[in-house]
Amino acid sequence: MAQGVFITLEGGEGVGKSTQLRLLRDALQSHGYEVLATREPGGSAGAEALRELLLFGQAPLSLRSEILTHFAARFDHVDQVIRPALAQGRIVLCDRFTDSTMAYQGYGRAEGDATILKLIAVLQAQLGLAPDMTFLLQAPRQVTRQRLAVRGAPTDRYEQADEAFHARIAAGFQAIAQQHPERVHCVTTDHCSAEAVTSRIMKDILPQLPNV
Amino acid sequence: MAQGVFITLEGGEGVGKSTQLRLLRDALQSHGYEVLATREPGGSAGAEALRELLLFGQAPLSLRSEILTHFAARFDHVDQVIRPALAQGRIVLCDRFTDSTMAYQGYGRAEGDATILKLIAVLQAQLGLAPDMTFLLQAPRQVTRQRLAVRGAPTDRYEQADEAFHARIAAGFQAIAQQHPERVHCVTTDHCSAEAVTSRIMKDILPQLPNV
Repeated sequence: MAQGVFITLEGGEGVGKSTQLRLLRDALQSHGYEVLATREPGGSAGAEALRELLLFGQAPLSLRSEILTHFAARFDHVDQVIRPALAQGRIVLCDRFTDSTMAYQGYGRAEGDATILKLIAVLQAQLGLAPDMTFLLQAPRQVTRQRLAVRGAPTDRYEQADEAFHARIAAGFQAIAQQHPERVHCVTTDHCSAEAVTSRIMKDILPQLPNV
Repeated sequence: MAQGVFITLEGGEGVGKSTQLRLLRDALQSHGYEVLATREPGGSAGAEALRELLLFGQAPLSLRSEILTHFAARFDHVDQVIRPALAQGRIVLCDRFTDSTMAYQGYGRAEGDATILKLIAVLQAQLGLAPDMTFLLQAPRQVTRQRLAVRGAPTDRYEQADEAFHARIAAGFQAIAQQHPERVHCVTTDHCSAEAVTSRIMKDILPQLPNV
């Protein structure tokens, strides 16, 4: 059976990743593709247990341990969910993947410390699976802050972080996009409707897919 | 302040590690040393939460994820407990460390699969801390099985595994000892009292310690 296609959505809090995940899944299905829509941290039973500990755990982990725990969840998600779906020829859409660990822990928490960036790169290499395409969703912080306020959901550890942290994350994502121009497509989400953003992304995706 | 000494106790279930941890701590303290006695998985608040998930979690992790989770706990334990104690010049005694991951996951669960042994070696290299001395406690399986039956504690995931698994673990520890003869001291625990085993180990440790 054909190998599937692995597509990730990346970006900071409130840029529209979960909305696009849903709209892209629907659009791809309407073109006749088998789609698995998933998200990180989590996406498998074991990874969801690790997600709880990462986002709401009472005992803060050291930064290196936090990175290892994100990858522990990611290895389970890849081994038990993503690889089997790709082996069945499905399109896997994932809300966050390694780029988020690089942006949040590497550029955000560690402020670009070389040892930490190296640790993340080593773990990514051991994982043995990288996205075929990544869409980096971007919007100005005043727009995303507004969206998060409207959403009103209980804020986790990352949504509560300060503005300097969010600025480092945005700069980190930008650096990642510049390092991987062949893989990472930047998409601004504040100048048009969610549906228009989906159409824009579908124009990039469809030529890369096998015929149904 | 002087750098401390990092000593680990290794071996399968029921070989006497926790008894020796206690007796060695007391013996070293009676010689005037500051000792931290700890154990893995666990040893820090965050690592204990990860330990619960590893030993009693409801959702079995993939083997690679299980290994990453053990190291996530280990990185937190090293960063928040072991390194600070060593920096204060203390002797750190630890019940299980990386050798256990190599023996249980690498040789036991993965049956020596080269990719898995490599993953564990890469993670160990990233950790950046190895024991100064390791005591590998060994006893025949019929002896350790008897001890576990007497103990009668609720058995965790590893104590419940089958005999072939335990045989691979014992062989794995033996292989590790042969690969690191300068670090790993093999000690049989079935021919004499626990106190005699402690005296035997102390004879190896004391010449390596700084004067108090």
